[in-house]
Amino acid sequence: MKGLEILPVEGIPEVRPGDDLPALISAAADGLFRSGDVVVVTHKIVSKAEGRLVDLDTVEPSTFAKSFATRYEKDPRQTEVVLWESRRIVKMDRGIIISETHHGFVCANAGVDASNVPGDDTVCLLPLDPDASAARLRDTLVSRTGVDVAVIVSDSFGRAWRQGITNVAIGVAGMDPLADYRGEKDPHGYPLTASVLAVADELASTAELVMGKTAGIPVAVVRGYPYSKGPGTGRDLIMEPGRDLFR
Amino acid sequence: MKGLEILPVEGIPEVRPGDDLPALISAAADGLFRSGDVVVVTHKIVSKAEGRLVDLDTVEPSTFAKSFATRYEKDPRQTEVVLWESRRIVKMDRGIIISETHHGFVCANAGVDASNVPGDDTVCLLPLDPDASAARLRDTLVSRTGVDVAVIVSDSFGRAWRQGITNVAIGVAGMDPLADYRGEKDPHGYPLTASVLAVADELASTAELVMGKTAGIPVAVVRGYPYSKGPGTGRDLIMEPGRDLFR
Repeated sequence: MKGLEILPVEGIPEVRPGDDLPALISAAADGLFRSGDVVVVTHKIVSKAEGRLVDLDTVEPSTFAKSFATRYEKDPRQTEVVLWESRRIVKMDRGIIISETHHGFVCANAGVDASNVPGDDTVCLLPLDPDASAARLRDTLVSRTGVDVAVIVSDSFGRAWRQGITNVAIGVAGMDPLADYRGEKDPHGYPLTASVLAVADELASTAELVMGKTAGIPVAVVRGYPYSKGPGTGRDLIMEPGRDLFR
Repeated sequence: MKGLEILPVEGIPEVRPGDDLPALISAAADGLFRSGDVVVVTHKIVSKAEGRLVDLDTVEPSTFAKSFATRYEKDPRQTEVVLWESRRIVKMDRGIIISETHHGFVCANAGVDASNVPGDDTVCLLPLDPDASAARLRDTLVSRTGVDVAVIVSDSFGRAWRQGITNVAIGVAGMDPLADYRGEKDPHGYPLTASVLAVADELASTAELVMGKTAGIPVAVVRGYPYSKGPGTGRDLIMEPGRDLFR
């Protein structure tokens, strides 16, 4: 087994609505990509390029948003946007909203975030369809650079029971996001029954280690990981409601 | 920002109770370690060296364990061991036990696992004190090799709402497992309020990508990650009960 390399892609400028994101990434990568690389892209630049920004001055908060936000010293307009982006609320307590987004992700504030966004009163939403975003990005990168890469669109999610956030994959293109060892045997011949690894989430976490939150590095490459090529999606990483004990 | 390298440590033999684990790891690493490396070790070899194995033939299942196991076609002796290792049950449904271990980790089956263990009727437990295990391992590796490394003891945990398991850090020595950006500002000057990253979990996930489940590689090195040296522990990664909405 060879090792992996994790390479930051530096020099991507501030992304604006309508920008040609694959062109900005390719220009910054400057020939870096190799066939078999996994290109991890933080959703924030994808959302910005897709215009998924909301000027809070245009938002009229509902009575419910005002009531919650006032109690916990939040901006009621931002709370209203969190409600727009939510299919249902999973937990709403102590100023925290954990909700299920229209995509099916369960996360804090439905992914609505004001960090790394220009303007005091602008918030960023998740891409409308992160798998479609990943697929478009991959198709364009592959056709322009001529090398076959997989693409992961990432976000940082909190976890139940554990402190801190970690990067996960919300959009995937060109690879199977799960490595399913069920049916295989360990070196002692014992059948592996519960071993389905969320490798796309692990790849997203790996990329975060060279991105940081303040370094302005929104893209990283993971080289050397023998992923399984296939039509996998970020939706494959959402627990089916019927199997989920924590809905 | 430089990149990272993730290097598998190959050639570690089957670990037995009482084995000198630092010696086995150093011998297999053969001079690989450099100052600043993070050495990630799967708990299974730590547990084996510490004798945290249970021969199921010695276990007398309780009435409760028999009732649950029979209903879901589980081994009642293994269910009994899961109950031993649990402080309380968080969810118990459809044959799945999510419990809080005596350490405070919330995970499936209290970390009791039959994979990668020799013998048909032997199960492996989590180390009694994974932070102490990590600290002992680090102290011995540092004193024998003369290079200053951090050590993470890892396990694979499932997650609420998401498919698949990912590696997390259950024991930590020589580094701060959380990177706390609160109080810092993003490149636009916006204060980061929610950004505490569980970097030790991300490092554990990164290492998993070169370990696999069937390749017999229980140790990997992450090189180039600028971790914050300090007295952090794996317990720092457990959400405090008073803040946890999902207890």
